[in-house]
Formats: sequence, structure tokens, C-alpha cells
Amino acid sequence: MTVSPNTPPGVLELLPAEQAVHDSMLATVRAGYRRYGFVPIETPVFERTDVLLTKTGGETERQVYFVQSAGSLAQGDGPDLALRFDLTVPLARYVAEHEHELVFPFRRSQVQRVYRGERPQRGRYREFYQCDIDIIDRDTLSLRHDAEVAATMISVLTELEIGEITVRLNNRRLMRSLLAYSGIASPDDQSAALREIDKLDKAGRDKVSESLVALGAARDGVDRLLDSISGRVGGLGDIEDALAELPTATREEGGGAEELTEVVRTMDALGVPPERYLLDLSVARGLDYYTGTVYETVLDSHPELGSICSGGRYDDLAGQYTSTRLPGVGMSIGFTRLFWQLREAGLLPGSRPPIDVTVSLIDEAGLEYALGIAGRLRAAGLSTESHMVPTKLGRQLRNADRAGIRFVVIAGEDERSQTEATVKDLTTGEQSLVDLDALVDHIRSRISRQEVR
Amino acid sequence: MTVSPNTPPGVLELLPAEQAVHDSMLATVRAGYRRYGFVPIETPVFERTDVLLTKTGGETERQVYFVQSAGSLAQGDGPDLALRFDLTVPLARYVAEHEHELVFPFRRSQVQRVYRGERPQRGRYREFYQCDIDIIDRDTLSLRHDAEVAATMISVLTELEIGEITVRLNNRRLMRSLLAYSGIASPDDQSAALREIDKLDKAGRDKVSESLVALGAARDGVDRLLDSISGRVGGLGDIEDALAELPTATREEGGGAEELTEVVRTMDALGVPPERYLLDLSVARGLDYYTGTVYETVLDSHPELGSICSGGRYDDLAGQYTSTRLPGVGMSIGFTRLFWQLREAGLLPGSRPPIDVTVSLIDEAGLEYALGIAGRLRAAGLSTESHMVPTKLGRQLRNADRAGIRFVVIAGEDERSQTEATVKDLTTGEQSLVDLDALVDHIRSRISRQEVR
Repeated sequence: MTVSPNTPPGVLELLPAEQAVHDSMLATVRAGYRRYGFVPIETPVFERTDVLLTKTGGETERQVYFVQSAGSLAQGDGPDLALRFDLTVPLARYVAEHEHELVFPFRRSQVQRVYRGERPQRGRYREFYQCDIDIIDRDTLSLRHDAEVAATMISVLTELEIGEITVRLNNRRLMRSLLAYSGIASPDDQSAALREIDKLDKAGRDKVSESLVALGAARDGVDRLLDSISGRVGGLGDIEDALAELPTATREEGGGAEELTEVVRTMDALGVPPERYLLDLSVARGLDYYTGTVYETVLDSHPELGSICSGGRYDDLAGQYTSTRLPGVGMSIGFTRLFWQLREAGLLPGSRPPIDVTVSLIDEAGLEYALGIAGRLRAAGLSTESHMVPTKLGRQLRNADRAGIRFVVIAGEDERSQTEATVKDLTTGEQSLVDLDALVDHIRSRISRQEVR
Repeated sequence: MTVSPNTPPGVLELLPAEQAVHDSMLATVRAGYRRYGFVPIETPVFERTDVLLTKTGGETERQVYFVQSAGSLAQGDGPDLALRFDLTVPLARYVAEHEHELVFPFRRSQVQRVYRGERPQRGRYREFYQCDIDIIDRDTLSLRHDAEVAATMISVLTELEIGEITVRLNNRRLMRSLLAYSGIASPDDQSAALREIDKLDKAGRDKVSESLVALGAARDGVDRLLDSISGRVGGLGDIEDALAELPTATREEGGGAEELTEVVRTMDALGVPPERYLLDLSVARGLDYYTGTVYETVLDSHPELGSICSGGRYDDLAGQYTSTRLPGVGMSIGFTRLFWQLREAGLLPGSRPPIDVTVSLIDEAGLEYALGIAGRLRAAGLSTESHMVPTKLGRQLRNADRAGIRFVVIAGEDERSQTEATVKDLTTGEQSLVDLDALVDHIRSRISRQEVR
């Protein structure tokens, strides 16, 4: 042994049983996105550095992973490729590159891994899955799509069966009118104020209050502002009432309240359960990238996990690549971190194991019979592994159990002489002698019962 | 516009309609692997360079992509990460790292992209999917698993509906006994001879013949050898007959003929159709990595595409990481290249489009009704996009057609007053007025009819 076989730090590699849960959750996400009309795309893991690093800078640029071929490295060239650090820049490049071949509004979903050279710490990954949806149009994009994105995420996250979730909605135009009303007039100061408000949970009310006053807000205005921010209301009617109580400036053109109302009304028309979303004026999203609607999502029973799915509306997706104005709205699940958090909290949903059935082999003479059984099960779509060499039955049962396989089919000389097989259900210990023709139905009916549970 | 939005050279990025075909083919591959009892795993895109580059060297090492974070680059450090260039080295690392948590024989499938800094040329990619299956055991691994791997691939490739395929089987021990019989005695000379035979298609018989003579073979031995090599026989009986005609040395212990017979007999017992595999002594596989069974696979109608799925048996997967001996057998589909070849040849299989239905919107008053329809369709599992803003119906129909969507649901004032909707099937032009309660069944029955075709 010369090299220690370890993954690099900051990646989450799974054993088969957990990989099955992981993949089944991702399959649920993908199917949900598709059901809402989002078309899946994939982009390369790396982009040209000039394409990837145009408008980022700061934190993100410091975290990027550069890529270069052995040849280029040997020649002492600088790297001309870098790994994607999110799915938004690749989307911008994709839409700009293929603009004339796409149909707008373009609803795209993308479930791929992204890469960030973060300082390693528990639950922070350098390689992680993001599950993004975005809707992009040319020139203008109806606010109703902001509702569609939230409705899709609420449906998908509910289907994951990880507990009830709530999407917290806000609007950055609304916040800017509130800040202007409190005395913070310039857009730059408002942006700084929004970044302060974004820290409310961590920094506390007093500290944020001081910062807002320092940015020019009147002290009593700040109090009123932070009072409005601390309330959260749900459902169309209550949200409309809450918005009506805010200063009139918020209800003027561009004041944000109308935008929010339109979004919430459309969510209602889309049939989103009112208990699944809230107006939450503390949701600020630090990024200036967002211009209107912003979203965060919490797992109701575990708010301490933070936002598991966030996003917002932006004015122009790909200004760095094309002169076409491409407004968009999107949300993203940070899937790997969520998976890790759920695992830590013991909240991972159940999943059908990777393999349904083991066909055992206890004597050499039984090989053809056993392979015939495996063939029948596979033809019926059951995932089946087959022992190819006879070993002790006890060991075969133990191994199936360790691998999380539920059914073991055994066919000794007696069973074979009667065209039968014994099916052992390892979850219940139940053992049944079944005619070969009834074998598939026997196992199938038990699997669906388990899935209904 | 400051930056031209282009992907780097050597990657295959797809538009949504082709992405749907691509993904549906990969889904078929994954489901097929699982049905045969292979458990899916994923490994990180990068590995530590000391882990990745232990036993390679030569061509592969020259093609590797190195990865380093912005911080490491700024400090002038050398890269300590590299992108995987195949799925076999990551499998070796995975099995060695998790040896005590895995159940053996370990049947794993892995469908991920790999990276090679190849010279760009048509149909050669720097980023491409591989779809691998391998079976690994500790100390010894029954030859019957060699049959299982081939049976799985034959089943999966057949299900892809890309035309009939044939797996060409050979055994490197058999080839070594034949070479020894022809006068090439040393293992190194035999390896060199196998590399020459691997070039038979391209270099031609005369050239290979000269090389074998130069390696020490008697001229008439070479003629007999190349005669045996040129024949291909299929089916258990004929393969056994062909093996019986080879020099007796091949039938001695370690001579290879017995191994091949065992593999073919097990394939027969697994129910593999005899016309799907051949004994082909010209299959040499250049890599010394393989020790016993070797496989290549051709698309019968397009043999010029070369092998679309290859692999073989190896003695020890992870000698560089662990002292446990881990014999294995595996095959791999070079999926991205195959997809590209099929597309070029017009052989891509059909696929359900990414989205099933567009719900149109022609007047503002119809929004709630239209969203209600979309909700019904989604609840029934149909992938549905919904227009959120009224536009001209002609444009909505054109866009649906461009996006490859088959059904457009239209509900004007008349339809709404009767709780009905019009369904237009864009593939046939057929238009039906349907009660809302019958809408899901109407569309579903048409989709399944299409899928049966």
C-alpha cells in the first residue's frame, strides 16, 4: 500500500444505502420541476475564465477553482478554465449563447454540482449539488412567474417529505420605499441598510438599529420599521391587510406593495396552501443582484437550519454577454447542505433500497433455477442481485440485510422439485413458500404496501 | 456586451429537446443497471493528485486536468487536485476507502462525467459521460460474474433501442497461450503482440503479421494464428466447437479456453440471446490492466462506429491503496461519444418531450380557469407549462411546437362557460372539445398510445 485512499476535504461521498436516499430525493426534485413545466438542461462543469469571472469579484472570485490541462501547466500558462461556482452564471451564458434557439419565457431547471473553495467546516462543502429553477423572458417578465417559481418550490419541497416548510416572501422595492420613508434616501445607503437588515437574526435589533441610524434614518422611523419587519403574516387576505398598513409610499408606482400583492394573488390562484407562505419583511437577501421579489424557505420544525431554498427576481440575467435584456426570477435548493443537515437531524426521508431482491444460491445444482428466478424478477422490473456461487445461506442472509435488501429468494432441492421458491422478508422475518408463477406478484404487492406506508 | 458567451472547446452542450433524449437514454441505462443488482454510487469530480496519479502515467497523465483554488494559485503552489479521467480509479479509491462498510461481491454502477485534455476533434470530448458497471470481490471472484456483466450490458444496450448490438468476447489468457504456441514465449513480447493484434483493423493483416514475426513467431504459426483470429462464432455450441479446434495448450490450466467456456455457459444460463454475443479472437484490448475476459461491443448496423461498450476482467483493482486483493470485472459505455455518433448517424431513439402540455391563456379573465387546468394536469403527473399572460393564440401554438410540446389546452369564454377545454394535438392537428373531468384521461391515453408506437 503506497497511497492512502481518501477523498479530498470538503466533499460528501455516500455509501450505497445513503446514496439511494440521496438519489431518490433528487429524483423527486427533478420530477417536480418537470411537472411545473421547467425543462432540464446541463452545462459543462467548467467554463472559460473570461466567461465565468466577468461580473463576480469579491468573495466568489476568491473561492473559484481554476482548471488547467497538464500540458498548459507544464508550459507555465495561467489557467483558462474554472469550475462553475453556481448555476446562474452558466445559465446566463447558456441563454445568451443559445438565445435564438430557445423559446421564451424559458423555464429551465438544472440539478448539478457546483464548486467553491470554502474554508472546510462541518456542513460546508466545496462540492455540492444545487437544484435551480429560473424563468427568463426577453424585455419584460410578468410578476406572475414570481408566483410560479414559489409554487413549484413549495410543491417540490412538500413532496420530499422532510417536514412542513414555509416560503418567506419579501420585495426589495418595498424595502427601499420603507427605508426612504425612514429617512435613508440614496440607493447605495439603502443597499447598505438591506445588508444590515439581512443580519438581523445574528446581530440583533439594537445593533441593526444603530447601523440604520448611522445611515441616516430617524430613530423613531427605525423603530417603526423594525416593528413592521418583526411581524410575519400568511395567506392572501392577511398579507393584503398588512401591506395596507404600511406607509402609502409603498403603494405608489414602484413602491413594491403592488408587486407583492400580484405575486401573492397568483400564488393563491395556483392553489398554493396559504399556510405554506408568509410575508416576511426581514427577508432582505444581501445580494444587490435581486431587484424585486425575494424568497427564503425554512423547515418549520427546524428553523435553526436557516434558509434551505432561496432566490429572487433580477432585472437582467446576462448583460455581460448580450445586449438583449433578460429579466428573470429563480430559486435554488442548496441540496448537499440540506441533505447533510437532514441526516444530522435524523430527518432523512425513507427510500426504497437500491436493490429489491437477492436470489440466493445454496447448491451448485441450483444455479440455472436461481438464474431463471432472477430473470423473471428483472423482467418484472424488480431490481435483483443473484448469487453466482453457492455459499452458506446464513452469510447470504446477513449480507442482504447489511446491504439493506428486503427480500431473499431461496430455492433448494425441495422448492425446485415443486417449481416453487421460499421468499424471506428481512424486515418482518416472514417466510413464504410461493409458486414461481406467483413470485413476482408476491414481492410486488409487499413493496407497494411498504411504499404506501 | 463585453464577453462572448461560448462554452470551452471539447464539451457537448445540448438544447432542451436533445437534452430530453440524452436524459431519457441515461435513465434507461441507470434503470437497467439497477435491475441487474448494481448499486449506484457517485464520487467527487476531483481527487487528490497523489490518489489519482499513482499508477497511470503515459498518455493518461498527459491528459489530466489539474484543479487548484484561487488562493493556492495566488500563493504559487502546485495543484493538489485533479479531475477524474475515468471512473475506475475513483472506484478503486472508493472500495479501498470504504472496504469495511461494503458488502462483497460489490456490484456498483456509476454514471458520471470524466475529463481528459484531448486534442479537440469531431466526436472527441474533453468532458464526457461514462456509464460503468463493475463487480468486485475480495481474494477471488467467480468467472460467472464476467457473464453477468456482459448480460447486463446486452440487456441495457438493447433497451436503448438504437439497433441490434453484439458483444465480442475474448480472453487474454487464451491469446497468450495461442501466442506461446506460435513461438512468442515471454509475457512482455506477448503483451507487445496483443497490442499489435489490437491494431489489426487499422494496420491490416500483413503489417501485423510482420510485427508478430519480429517478436519471434514462426511465419506459418502466425498464419494459423491470424486465420483463427479472423473467424467469429456465436452461440454456446459453436463457441465450444471453435475452442475445441484450437491448440490443446489453450485447454490446459490457465490456457483460457475453460474460462471462456464458463463465461459463455453462464451467459446462456442467464438467458442471453445467442445472437447477441460472439467469440472474437481479434479483440485484444491494448491495456495490460486486463488479465482474462475482454469485451467489445458493436452496433450491428454501424460497425464503423467502433466499440461502444468495452471492458474486461482485472486481477487487482486497488493494489496502490490497499493490501486486500480485489479482483474485478467491468464494462463501460462511453456515453457522450455514443450519443454524438447516434445523432450524426440519425439513429437517436425517440423520447417523450421534456414538457407534455401547454395551457394557453388568451384573455385576462381566463387566468384562474387556466391555472386550475394546469393544477389538474400536474396532479395527474403530466408535465405542464402554463401561460401566465394572455398573448395571441397563434404565437402560443407556434412556441409550443418549437419547444416540441405535443398538447395545447385552450379555454376561451365558451369553453369556460361549459366547464370544458379544447385540446389540440400538435402532432396530428386533431382538436377535441373535452369536459374538464375527462381532460387528464384524454391526454394520458394519447401519450400512452404514442409511447407504444
